[in-house]
Amino acid sequence: MSVGVTFPKGFQAAGVIAGIKKKVGLLDMTLITAENAIPAGAVFTQNLVHAAPVVVSKANLEKSHNKIRAVIVNSGCANAVTGEEGYKNALTMAQETAQAVGCKPEEVLVMSTGVIGQQLPMKKVSAGIKELKKSLSTDGGANAALGIMTTDTKPKKAQAVIETSQGEVRIGGMAKGVGMIHPNMATLICIVTTDAVFEPEVLKKITREVADKSYNRITVDGDTSTNDTFAVLASGASGITPDAAKFSEALLEVCTDLSKQILRDGEGATKLITLRVSGTKTDSEATQIAKTIATSLLFKTAIYGKDANWGRVLAAAGRSGVTFDPSLAQLKFGNLKLVEAGQPLAFSEEEALKILEAPDLTVELNVGHGSGQSEVWTCDLTHEYVSINAHYRT
Amino acid sequence: MSVGVTFPKGFQAAGVIAGIKKKVGLLDMTLITAENAIPAGAVFTQNLVHAAPVVVSKANLEKSHNKIRAVIVNSGCANAVTGEEGYKNALTMAQETAQAVGCKPEEVLVMSTGVIGQQLPMKKVSAGIKELKKSLSTDGGANAALGIMTTDTKPKKAQAVIETSQGEVRIGGMAKGVGMIHPNMATLICIVTTDAVFEPEVLKKITREVADKSYNRITVDGDTSTNDTFAVLASGASGITPDAAKFSEALLEVCTDLSKQILRDGEGATKLITLRVSGTKTDSEATQIAKTIATSLLFKTAIYGKDANWGRVLAAAGRSGVTFDPSLAQLKFGNLKLVEAGQPLAFSEEEALKILEAPDLTVELNVGHGSGQSEVWTCDLTHEYVSINAHYRT
Repeated sequence: MSVGVTFPKGFQAAGVIAGIKKKVGLLDMTLITAENAIPAGAVFTQNLVHAAPVVVSKANLEKSHNKIRAVIVNSGCANAVTGEEGYKNALTMAQETAQAVGCKPEEVLVMSTGVIGQQLPMKKVSAGIKELKKSLSTDGGANAALGIMTTDTKPKKAQAVIETSQGEVRIGGMAKGVGMIHPNMATLICIVTTDAVFEPEVLKKITREVADKSYNRITVDGDTSTNDTFAVLASGASGITPDAAKFSEALLEVCTDLSKQILRDGEGATKLITLRVSGTKTDSEATQIAKTIATSLLFKTAIYGKDANWGRVLAAAGRSGVTFDPSLAQLKFGNLKLVEAGQPLAFSEEEALKILEAPDLTVELNVGHGSGQSEVWTCDLTHEYVSINAHYRT
Repeated sequence: MSVGVTFPKGFQAAGVIAGIKKKVGLLDMTLITAENAIPAGAVFTQNLVHAAPVVVSKANLEKSHNKIRAVIVNSGCANAVTGEEGYKNALTMAQETAQAVGCKPEEVLVMSTGVIGQQLPMKKVSAGIKELKKSLSTDGGANAALGIMTTDTKPKKAQAVIETSQGEVRIGGMAKGVGMIHPNMATLICIVTTDAVFEPEVLKKITREVADKSYNRITVDGDTSTNDTFAVLASGASGITPDAAKFSEALLEVCTDLSKQILRDGEGATKLITLRVSGTKTDSEATQIAKTIATSLLFKTAIYGKDANWGRVLAAAGRSGVTFDPSLAQLKFGNLKLVEAGQPLAFSEEEALKILEAPDLTVELNVGHGSGQSEVWTCDLTHEYVSINAHYRT
């Protein structure tokens, strides 16, 4: 069965070993193609320091009026902070892909992920593009998901089906993580395909909305990448334009699934943490509190240590910049109430440990003011995270 | 020789073992007294969730018109998020100290540091206060610095002397860290004494200014404590009112010294990192960029790994919220130029390793726009940090 980006009709994909990654034998290039130029919606990192491929992809979407034929991705080198040489290399990637596929260069999206500040080995990249073209298939979704991985330990794929009166519409996606994850628009490379029929403008709007509700709600380490790119491609091969709300919902489901896969595989992570904050004046205040907790090292290390050190949750909330009255706060780990009306409750450490030993943890903080609410997902901070990132370039 | 808070004339201090800390044999209570109620300037955490002793100390300063006779401190329990019981306990600490010393309760500053969300063992605290009163001496500065430690591996003390035409004025201080350090007004307990003569209002102003230039420029882990308190007490015992600018300078020297001691002893830290950012439109923009780099987990783990992964510095700067043109950026690790006019330079990895092996690292980023500049200090993020914080309560 075809999975990920080749689950919907109208797409081919491939992943190959181009030799960009230092470790031998790992897939490090991916190509996705459509049968012709098709509508694409995309959101990119808001980091001022953005990689050359982000610059090129943004320009190409503008030139092609959001109609894309191919997506070329490499892992192992982010082509970020690489100056003019890096920019030329990203352009070359688009040109050579266009040549191989038979389209205009501006109909190609370029994505890179890996080490920052190093130049791409262009001979290997060029050879990789030719190899990818040969390997394209409607079953290529699995390899495509492998070709974009960096510190990921598992490929991340997700699918959804929308049933309509005219038949089914498919959505398939893949993503990679798993460090420098604090998306401010989208996560470091997520590509979703669909065989739905959509105008580029509608797709763009949906893409942005879904990004805000999924990728913009996760954090591994608080560092926003220079390469974040989230693109949705609609081949139209189903011949069906589904109800936009229904489609958004299914797309959100796929993206939430991928987001959680990223966190479960977050660098060194042992736990997926769901933070539900409520009782704020607005939803965005709730998000602000939740993100502050989600990036607190002290909170994240305590959860790693299975220590119900709930005081750190309130301490983080208190420095979030949102005004609230701590004496109204209510806090729960799972079903265990820890704070009620700002007063700490006696609790069973044994029961707390049981909750903290599960692979998933839900933390609920109600600050008791209003009806604002939000949900943010994160993971714990572990020894392994430090090991991975102390020697990433070598 | 008397050190720390008993270095200036007019102060007595003591540190004792009250049995609040779980580990036996560690000093965990400290008392500092002046001969009568003397001017005090203090700044406190801006975390909305602030501890009971912070509430009591703020109220006492107001009631006493910033004239303080004694400071009582305990470590091992922060008395934060402890509800009404915690508030009553902080009041009791002030009352019992006042009784022992022979002053009004509002002439006592109360400080607590340690685990959040647990009640103080008040029997031990009461016995500790009596014991402290008996142990007071003009040589007590060293023990006083030991009594306030939590995860610190070393006590932190500093002294300075101001020579004036009328004689010398002394400043002495102590501080503790070394986690939950991202002060937003002051670090978790720093007490500085001086024998200078100052009006409370002048002292208050100087205290705030110095805090902004020292404690508010350091970060260990980005988490602002619930208990941050920085107090300066002026006994007037020298009979001299030094030039305010000269005094500020000497006080800043003492506080910078203590700030750097905190970072050198930052939880698990192996390196003191100085971040110098320049070329911004304003100084506060430079501080904003420097603090974003200083709290980047990816930057801090790379430095721990002695990896010159300079791309992470620019990636952090790019998400800081300050607008700049990356193509004008210049970056240096020590004397090693890594980026010039936004272009990466070839550099010797051997030379980079030599720079990264030293216990001190200076990172200089010039974004090439204006004349704004700032300096911020931080430390690296290590396996040991995770170990310390995974099981802090137990």
